[in-house]
Amino acid sequence: MPDIPVSPFAPARFPKLPAVAGLRLAAIAAGERYRRRADLTLAELAPGSTIAGVFTRSTMPGAPVLWCRKHIGRGKARAIVINAGNANVFTGRQGMEDVAATAVAVAAAVGCKQEEVMVASTGVIGQTLSVDRLLRAVPRLHRRLNARGWRAAARAICTTDTYLKGASAQAEIDGKVVLIAGIAKGSGMIAPDMATMLSFLFTDAKLPADVLQSLLHWGNGQSFNCITVDGDTSTSDTVLLAATGQGPKHGMITDAKDNRLASFRAALLSVMQDLAKQVVRDGEGASKFVTITVSGAASARAARRIAMTIANSPLVKTAIAGEDANWGRIIMAVGRAGEKADRDRLTIRIGGVVIAEAGHPHPDYREAQVVPHMKGREIDIAVDVGVGRGKATVWTCDLTHGYISINGDYRS
Amino acid sequence: MPDIPVSPFAPARFPKLPAVAGLRLAAIAAGERYRRRADLTLAELAPGSTIAGVFTRSTMPGAPVLWCRKHIGRGKARAIVINAGNANVFTGRQGMEDVAATAVAVAAAVGCKQEEVMVASTGVIGQTLSVDRLLRAVPRLHRRLNARGWRAAARAICTTDTYLKGASAQAEIDGKVVLIAGIAKGSGMIAPDMATMLSFLFTDAKLPADVLQSLLHWGNGQSFNCITVDGDTSTSDTVLLAATGQGPKHGMITDAKDNRLASFRAALLSVMQDLAKQVVRDGEGASKFVTITVSGAASARAARRIAMTIANSPLVKTAIAGEDANWGRIIMAVGRAGEKADRDRLTIRIGGVVIAEAGHPHPDYREAQVVPHMKGREIDIAVDVGVGRGKATVWTCDLTHGYISINGDYRS
Repeated sequence: MPDIPVSPFAPARFPKLPAVAGLRLAAIAAGERYRRRADLTLAELAPGSTIAGVFTRSTMPGAPVLWCRKHIGRGKARAIVINAGNANVFTGRQGMEDVAATAVAVAAAVGCKQEEVMVASTGVIGQTLSVDRLLRAVPRLHRRLNARGWRAAARAICTTDTYLKGASAQAEIDGKVVLIAGIAKGSGMIAPDMATMLSFLFTDAKLPADVLQSLLHWGNGQSFNCITVDGDTSTSDTVLLAATGQGPKHGMITDAKDNRLASFRAALLSVMQDLAKQVVRDGEGASKFVTITVSGAASARAARRIAMTIANSPLVKTAIAGEDANWGRIIMAVGRAGEKADRDRLTIRIGGVVIAEAGHPHPDYREAQVVPHMKGREIDIAVDVGVGRGKATVWTCDLTHGYISINGDYRS
Repeated sequence: MPDIPVSPFAPARFPKLPAVAGLRLAAIAAGERYRRRADLTLAELAPGSTIAGVFTRSTMPGAPVLWCRKHIGRGKARAIVINAGNANVFTGRQGMEDVAATAVAVAAAVGCKQEEVMVASTGVIGQTLSVDRLLRAVPRLHRRLNARGWRAAARAICTTDTYLKGASAQAEIDGKVVLIAGIAKGSGMIAPDMATMLSFLFTDAKLPADVLQSLLHWGNGQSFNCITVDGDTSTSDTVLLAATGQGPKHGMITDAKDNRLASFRAALLSVMQDLAKQVVRDGEGASKFVTITVSGAASARAARRIAMTIANSPLVKTAIAGEDANWGRIIMAVGRAGEKADRDRLTIRIGGVVIAEAGHPHPDYREAQVVPHMKGREIDIAVDVGVGRGKATVWTCDLTHGYISINGDYRS
């Protein structure tokens, strides 16, 4: 493994995350793959907690994803256990047995059913877990649980991340202040020889599982599903949202569209977008953070597809790395997306400067106008394709020699 | 523009291509963009010649593509004119007028209708052509036409290519020997600031335009449509196939499925695949040529999509550059493709060595077995996804620091 330089976007410090009533966290060095670092994380949820989850769309999901998919529908969880270093993917029947054994061990420690334990893993593909090491560590891990374990948990779920990722927000429901806090890992959709974007979100609000699932699905569509580093999708991507119901008492909520959730929805989205952007900013080799907004598309879905095609274009990404306002490559990417776009009404703005309009380069455009923007760390690209009202924003990073070095300049 | 190192796959010399009866070629330095090199190419076809074409699927096609699409349906052509250096893309109404003016000038020189002139362009996007320079050069260009102009034409259509690309084959129809010969350019689906994969194929056989179109479409599906360098699609991709009917007289053909075309089909496919592979081998920064075969898919289309997802994965491509037999990334890519695949019947072979089988790493697999293969220049990856009989092969190259340097390490 190469030494990976810390992302230029690494924050000065891990944010101070609040204790969430009904949640305790801990991490421990189980020695499954890594030496001398915590690699096993436990989140314990108070009795009565609800849970929701979204998972990778890969047709080759890991055993932990299959486990969670099987049990998440019940909407109840008492624990989440995460190991880093081995993704438990492409490990056949043994992989499924190892997940079940882990859930059984955690259930015994926590005092719940095995189906109430969610499992997530990240790391190498195609290696059987040293599951005994995980099982042996569970009782000690359980004894370490405490309300302030955020930082330890955020670190223990990492693989090739160059900084820890956390975010939190407050919201009001019926005038009562509830908390949302979460952590994430990921450094590319998939990191060198490692897999996965993982995020775990918690709230002390009291929300039924189906409401939680709607909120998570909605938030995910505007956060983690709007980021890309290299277009590659992990076999293990998992985002879980748990609600302990142990915060200040508020009225019963039975519908995700309830107006009393307006503040909660906004807070959830801010936490999810914050974490999603932190993942992109830690993208392998990233030197620029890029926001791509597409408007005027036939639908929001079409806008997202166009934005993602721009975001995943190696030619666009290398141009940004080279600080080159190469808008011809943006047109190429729009054309490649296959969604309706009107060449003669197309507008491209970089850093707010209109570069192309109505099927022509803008007559007043001079490259010097965007040079300062391109030299900055935050790049804004806005494209209006002139056919409708669909809009989407996605976030990505540039494609640099750093990406090639991290992913190609070594033998595993 | 950086100095681009010559591809390690560059052939020792441009192949000797045969004169095709009814075809004359020439190239000239029109000075449209480049200095001191030929940039304008003319292919003149005998009266009665038929033509077929396939074009980019980009929704932002260049003006020359729009021109060709409009006229190719008539199936007749007397000339093809190609300029390199300016793609005439995103140039609005002026772009269309410039194409028409070029066609009119060529038609006057050749003595045909403007609709019988096909036009192709490659180069920068969003700049109006200096069309006067092209028009002025046409009469001199026409005077240079000769039956042996292959090499000059192959050179004049290039932009960032690091070697010239040509191929030819003989075929028999009714026991008569006919010829197929062609040239291509392209170095990536799209090159730095330049666009386009172009190929021009010629035969002296006598074939109606609809037969020609069927044959071209069929051949393209197994050649140029099976290559990828970076997954980016040019706004100008064009492949034209012209038949002069000036070779040895053979019986009339009215159906592309006619058995008498068996040899012709095989020869056409060999020329098209040869040229397609030459384009990939000149892929920007390529150090390895990669053949990816997917079998056992639900359909040929599903197999192609899985193969293309593997071929376009930056993580697979960087692993190959690093000579790392990282099969976990191949599984990730199969999972990402979204096509049906059976994890528990999946087989992966690299260089013929079975690495994974039936949902597990193969028990006898040791990485040392594939190290010599990974160190070679030609990498073979075979994946059987275990659900059906669909099969496809695609060709690509690895993703290296060279790609980043060519596309990112400069300001345009």
